[in-house]
Amino acid sequence: MSNGGLQTLRTSTPEEGYALAVNLAQKAIELTQPSEDIRKLLRPVYSTDANSLIAVSQVVALHFQTVAFANNYWNN
Amino acid sequence: MSNGGLQTLRTSTPEEGYALAVNLAQKAIELTQPSEDIRKLLRPVYSTDANSLIAVSQVVALHFQTVAFANNYWNN
Amino acid sequence: MSNGGLQTLRTSTPEEGYALAVNLAQKAIELTQPSEDIRKLLRPVYSTDANSLIAVSQVVALHFQTVAFANNYWNN
Amino acid sequence: MSNGGLQTLRTSTPEEGYALAVNLAQKAIELTQPSEDIRKLLRPVYSTDANSLIAVSQVVALHFQTVAFANNYWNN
Amino acid sequence: MSNGGLQTLRTSTPEEGYALAVNLAQKAIELTQPSEDIRKLLRPVYSTDANSLIAVSQVVALHFQTVAFANNYWNN
Amino acid sequence: MSNGGLQTLRTSTPEEGYALAVNLAQKAIELTQPSEDIRKLLRPVYSTDANSLIAVSQVVALHFQTVAFANNYWNN
Repeated sequence: MSNGGLQTLRTSTPEEGYALAVNLAQKAIELTQPSEDIRKLLRPVYSTDANSLIAVSQVVALHFQTVAFANNYWNN
Repeated sequence: MSNGGLQTLRTSTPEEGYALAVNLAQKAIELTQPSEDIRKLLRPVYSTDANSLIAVSQVVALHFQTVAFANNYWNN
Repeated sequence: MSNGGLQTLRTSTPEEGYALAVNLAQKAIELTQPSEDIRKLLRPVYSTDANSLIAVSQVVALHFQTVAFANNYWNN
Repeated sequence: MSNGGLQTLRTSTPEEGYALAVNLAQKAIELTQPSEDIRKLLRPVYSTDANSLIAVSQVVALHFQTVAFANNYWNN
Repeated sequence: MSNGGLQTLRTSTPEEGYALAVNLAQKAIELTQPSEDIRKLLRPVYSTDANSLIAVSQVVALHFQTVAFANNYWNN
Repeated sequence: MSNGGLQTLRTSTPEEGYALAVNLAQKAIELTQPSEDIRKLLRPVYSTDANSLIAVSQVVALHFQTVAFANNYWNN
């Protein structure tokens, strides 16, 4: 993401698309909790909790749906 | 959003689209809990709770899906 | 919604579309718990709980997706 | 739903479409818990719990998306 | 599902489509917890818990969306 | 998935598509919690918890929606 923020949802592969989906999932958390220190404190909580990890994966799945559609599922 | 409320879902970039998605996610909370004081009291609760932050991100992801589709994924 | 119930998903603006989405989210709750008294007892519970408010916003987001699609995203 | 089960997703109005969505949401619960007695025991639990009611509304919202799409959003 | 696994999402009626959606929802659970004994131990837990039943219904709703789209909503 | 990561969402059957959806669901968990040891510690927790298993199935359902759409629902 350039310093002008998110300019495109296009990626060359599903792998890059998945990485963008992970970024999109994190973006809302950074906007909702701007303090990097607090986010760092929370990391050991959610990254060692099975249900939190599953919930993170669900948000990524929604964004991956969006990114995949934006890239015509990389079918070209 | 003008004082006539939400008039369009069109934005010029995905970055602006994401900001609109965050607004759309907050809008239902403001309609459901109109008291700004109560919302302010809740802020330290959800903004320091990993699962609440992930749940917020999920709502933004759903609205971002809608806004992205409305803007043809900014592919023009 | 006329007394014949929900006759259309068309609205003239996204703002009206969002209000319809809120109605659609409430409709299932009224059908599942027809007692207005009980619903009134529950209001202070969910409207002062951050996770409940986020969950309400998620249901509105799903209905807003549906209403937006029904109105071609108000792009006409 | 006729005794041959669900034969169509078509309804004449969004109101009927919403009622079908409620039926579709209940159908999985009846298939997962066939005992009507147990389901009746559970009713006072979820119908007086704000988060359960919101979760029910979310399932109805997903099915309403499906039924609305099946009926071209009753735009004809 | 033949022994070659899932070969098609096509069904002749929405009723069959709903049954396929239930199978698709169960499939991930069987893949994640291959032990039938453990799954049997869990059955009385989720099948008598309102929130678990609602969560099951939500997964079925997502798969029913997919199966309905695959069958053009049985509109032919 | 080749060592270049995810290159395509195309699969020849829904069965393979479902397996890809399971991989996509796991991928976010591996990215969020890179330690295989920690993930192994969590396995007995979520794989014997009904609600965790249902939540896993929900993430797979979202990815299966994406993969099915990418493959035109294997209708060709």
